Amino acid sequence: MFQTFQSQSNPENVAARVKALRALMAKAKLDAVLIPRADKHQGEYVPASDERLQWISGFSGSAGLAVVTRKSAMLMIDGRYTVQAAAETDKSVFEVSLLPRAKLGEWLSSALGKGHTVGFDPWTHTGGEIARLKTALSSKNIKLKPLPKNPIDTLWGKARPKPPANPVIAQPLEFTGKSAADKIASIQARLKSEGQAAVILTLPDSICWLFNIRGSDVAHNPVALAFAIVPASGKAELFIDAERVDAEARTSLAKVAKLLPPKTMKERLASLKSQGKRVRLDPETASAWFELKLGPAAIARGQDPCILPKAIKTEAEIDGARSAHERDGAAVVRFLAWLDDTAPKGELDEITAVKKLEDFRRDTNMLREISFATISGAGSNGAIVHYRVSEATNRTVTPGELFLIDSGGQYQDGTTDITRTVAVGEPNQNMKRHFTAVLKGHIAVATARFPKGTRGIDLDPFARRALWSIGEDFDHGTGHGIGSYLSVHEGPQSISRGGMTPLEPGMLISNEPGFYKVGAYGIRIENVVLVTPAEKIGDGERPMMALETLTLAPIDRRLIDVEMLETIEREWLDAYHRRVFETLSGKLDAHDRAWLKQATKPL
Amino acid sequence: MFQTFQSQSNPENVAARVKALRALMAKAKLDAVLIPRADKHQGEYVPASDERLQWISGFSGSAGLAVVTRKSAMLMIDGRYTVQAAAETDKSVFEVSLLPRAKLGEWLSSALGKGHTVGFDPWTHTGGEIARLKTALSSKNIKLKPLPKNPIDTLWGKARPKPPANPVIAQPLEFTGKSAADKIASIQARLKSEGQAAVILTLPDSICWLFNIRGSDVAHNPVALAFAIVPASGKAELFIDAERVDAEARTSLAKVAKLLPPKTMKERLASLKSQGKRVRLDPETASAWFELKLGPAAIARGQDPCILPKAIKTEAEIDGARSAHERDGAAVVRFLAWLDDTAPKGELDEITAVKKLEDFRRDTNMLREISFATISGAGSNGAIVHYRVSEATNRTVTPGELFLIDSGGQYQDGTTDITRTVAVGEPNQNMKRHFTAVLKGHIAVATARFPKGTRGIDLDPFARRALWSIGEDFDHGTGHGIGSYLSVHEGPQSISRGGMTPLEPGMLISNEPGFYKVGAYGIRIENVVLVTPAEKIGDGERPMMALETLTLAPIDRRLIDVEMLETIEREWLDAYHRRVFETLSGKLDAHDRAWLKQATKPL
Repeated sequence: MFQTFQSQSNPENVAARVKALRALMAKAKLDAVLIPRADKHQGEYVPASDERLQWISGFSGSAGLAVVTRKSAMLMIDGRYTVQAAAETDKSVFEVSLLPRAKLGEWLSSALGKGHTVGFDPWTHTGGEIARLKTALSSKNIKLKPLPKNPIDTLWGKARPKPPANPVIAQPLEFTGKSAADKIASIQARLKSEGQAAVILTLPDSICWLFNIRGSDVAHNPVALAFAIVPASGKAELFIDAERVDAEARTSLAKVAKLLPPKTMKERLASLKSQGKRVRLDPETASAWFELKLGPAAIARGQDPCILPKAIKTEAEIDGARSAHERDGAAVVRFLAWLDDTAPKGELDEITAVKKLEDFRRDTNMLREISFATISGAGSNGAIVHYRVSEATNRTVTPGELFLIDSGGQYQDGTTDITRTVAVGEPNQNMKRHFTAVLKGHIAVATARFPKGTRGIDLDPFARRALWSIGEDFDHGTGHGIGSYLSVHEGPQSISRGGMTPLEPGMLISNEPGFYKVGAYGIRIENVVLVTPAEKIGDGERPMMALETLTLAPIDRRLIDVEMLETIEREWLDAYHRRVFETLSGKLDAHDRAWLKQATKPL
Repeated sequence: MFQTFQSQSNPENVAARVKALRALMAKAKLDAVLIPRADKHQGEYVPASDERLQWISGFSGSAGLAVVTRKSAMLMIDGRYTVQAAAETDKSVFEVSLLPRAKLGEWLSSALGKGHTVGFDPWTHTGGEIARLKTALSSKNIKLKPLPKNPIDTLWGKARPKPPANPVIAQPLEFTGKSAADKIASIQARLKSEGQAAVILTLPDSICWLFNIRGSDVAHNPVALAFAIVPASGKAELFIDAERVDAEARTSLAKVAKLLPPKTMKERLASLKSQGKRVRLDPETASAWFELKLGPAAIARGQDPCILPKAIKTEAEIDGARSAHERDGAAVVRFLAWLDDTAPKGELDEITAVKKLEDFRRDTNMLREISFATISGAGSNGAIVHYRVSEATNRTVTPGELFLIDSGGQYQDGTTDITRTVAVGEPNQNMKRHFTAVLKGHIAVATARFPKGTRGIDLDPFARRALWSIGEDFDHGTGHGIGSYLSVHEGPQSISRGGMTPLEPGMLISNEPGFYKVGAYGIRIENVVLVTPAEKIGDGERPMMALETLTLAPIDRRLIDVEMLETIEREWLDAYHRRVFETLSGKLDAHDRAWLKQATKPL
């Protein structure tokens, strides 16, 4: 699945708010101010208290940045949001621009005069971005001024929502497979070997992984917003309001961490700085605020050391993922059976489908939350890769159309992400040809065997070859990493044109090639796969890895042009469908079992 | 094919020569001296006058570097040369090391003391390498001192061979398809658009391409060693001894360039520097000498602007390549027919095969030179990827073995590079299985269709998938770019794990997957392919590219396990063989035609 946005917007008052901001800017002698959609953790989802970009511009998309100068105002967005941004903002105030974020420095250089000053909130930009902006602005001697308080917060005042402080709970060892103490010890060993006195952690999913805790401070990702400092030796420090940590979590945390009030972090950094030691900080994920507090001499730049070990799942996490995918697969099968009964009548709309699928997941009694806002696209809406249904766009599925649904669940034992494309009524030959080409790509990834050192970039072409052969392609990556009851988008691995991280056994990754015919239909087939050591075949001398498909739900046989499949591809699909039936049939009632039986019969 | 080395070595006197060098070092107050295998052009082949590494160490490999300190001496080589270096050098003087070149700075830091001085000849290192070394040595305050004269040249004295000054000839427009004037104009347009006053060209193949000239100053590559300066407007300057330029070339050069004596280049650089303008220089290919002469303020770092246009062949170059491959293919077919008659008797050795193949190429009366030292590997020698036969290693091909031969020709209309692996006597099932897996990879590349923006890194996995599926792989790239009567190894494109250059129609590239069973046999199937726009298939909406195979010679049918091939693969091989027969049969006598008929019959 792809990044989400909320579609409730609030374009009123944009002019008045920008005017008020300019008054503040005049007082503070600022020639421009930057307002990115970002919180202190640089996450994909931000809490309501950090929706500053929406407050000033009306735009509610999941990524973007506003620049307000004394005279002009620009709203930088990406291609997904062209329509939405134009609808949500006040275009008499903001120029909506598709300028890439990397060009911000150039834009500021041409919009501002020599020696001008740009204000920014160091909490809402990474250190890396500020360093690059500084370089870009140096030739015109434009200064970047970190602001002690975000000017939007000053203007927003009491109406600003409170920052989230939801309960923090323990994620038990039976699901994590590794104690926080063991994880911390391995991070500390790495710090020692690299000569670093401590590491500052700012990514909520890294912190939740390391300390085996979970929360609900942002949508869809079960994380608690917190910061942590792990010294090379001694107890880790978790900066979080202790009152919101539940008793069980507090007990388990007590063994490995000091719980400290968030406001004490500043002093702690000052103390680290004064010791003259080097502290590891990830300039691409940590807010610039940390660099300002520590100063360059105290910083050892390096990737967040939790990212790679978090991606390599433990046996318990793998078992959990298998269970979660079986449970989720049964819910999806119930939904698909219901869809087949309902949709051909020609009255089903996208929103009803989303709600019904969520109901089937809730019926498991294990769903904590859906893992992202469901993509539910009927006919031409399916061709919009980043589509999210709203009341305004809600479409009824008409017989003769395709219906694409991309969804997932957060369960305590695992996170799921599945896309199925279903024929409603009789599909035409083109739909079958395109669906089968996507399926061939999906199977080519699913059946790949590959040696140590293989990166996602090396598997990505397998997903595209069949589409390339008929003059088609898709404009998104083939797969992203997935967390264990954490973020549905997780690094560092991916199957994509830029996926340079070597794959390792234990990584979870999505396999989701697609095809999008603008104005007509969208096709995507997505399963989650696990990287495993491959069984040895014959006398092959090199150890290989393979992918085990975890997602269990039928792939619509009515959309397959069997003539286009090689024997090995037919065999894969039949074996997959056999496994789906054998694994799920016991979890279904007679009606749904009968439906699954015919949906999984051999080609 | 892979990089070559000469196997005549000269280990005598190593101790005495190193002693003499240390005496010079003491006089010049140097604590260490660097002696890389390099000439002023940083090319793959160096003239005899630049074989300084061999002079000081005895080692004659195609890549390496010696460091001599007051007390120690190290010979840095790569894994190809472990056996050869040990045999050629005096191990009581030189420690042979597999340390990668990128670690040279670390080694010097630990071997030398604070404030020590390392001497180097700025002509024999790139500016990029010296900059990285400077950074690595800064913490210990070790200085890098450019030497006004190479100390090896001082010691070598009159025995040092004269630098080559072979005739320079014109490469006619009928072969280049684009005049030097047009090429220079497009380079000048680029310099203007990037605000650069001139570009300094140091790569002989760039210069020969730009000025439409050829030479014979180094082995196998038909280049003249020269330098050039192309100003953003006005006449280009070619620094070359005018006497060695033949009358025809002199006439055509006169229209586009001033021919200047090489020794005047220094003044010319000083004049460019004094004008305060920025001159383009490629830090990764140009000698550090240029950076020293120009100074940092005058340099605009950028890739040699000839590299990409040189790789995209003109229609005339493509026509030439087709002709050269037909001619070369007929010679190879004659060789393969002769091999089938001769080898099963069990008396054919590798050197005889090399000579015979060269004879067949010479019989075309068009061969200028072979394009690299032929790789001729019988049985277990075929498994040594970088093998070059010598009297010491020469092996007789025994029935039941495989024979691998990788060779090419330089013709005025094109450069060829082909590998065939042949069964002598009856191959066993493992040989067939491995050969067929390699063939499947070869066909997967040959039949790929792919969109704009596809890079060689995206095609490389297609070459490996079938090998991966049986637990095997090969440890070299799948393909390299190829020149037009220029270098057989040409950038910037490649099909490899690092091939990030987008492929474009007109590029030539090799397709050469392999398999190597140590101690038993080597398999490689290599054809040269041309990137072309693909024919549109059906209603596919995106334009695609494809690969047209130019190399024409049968692939040994006796080594194919037909059961392992998909229908589409059989069809490709049969169609290829039909084309080989139809194109070449008219160029052969009755005996060879009959041989080709059976060698190309459908599977």
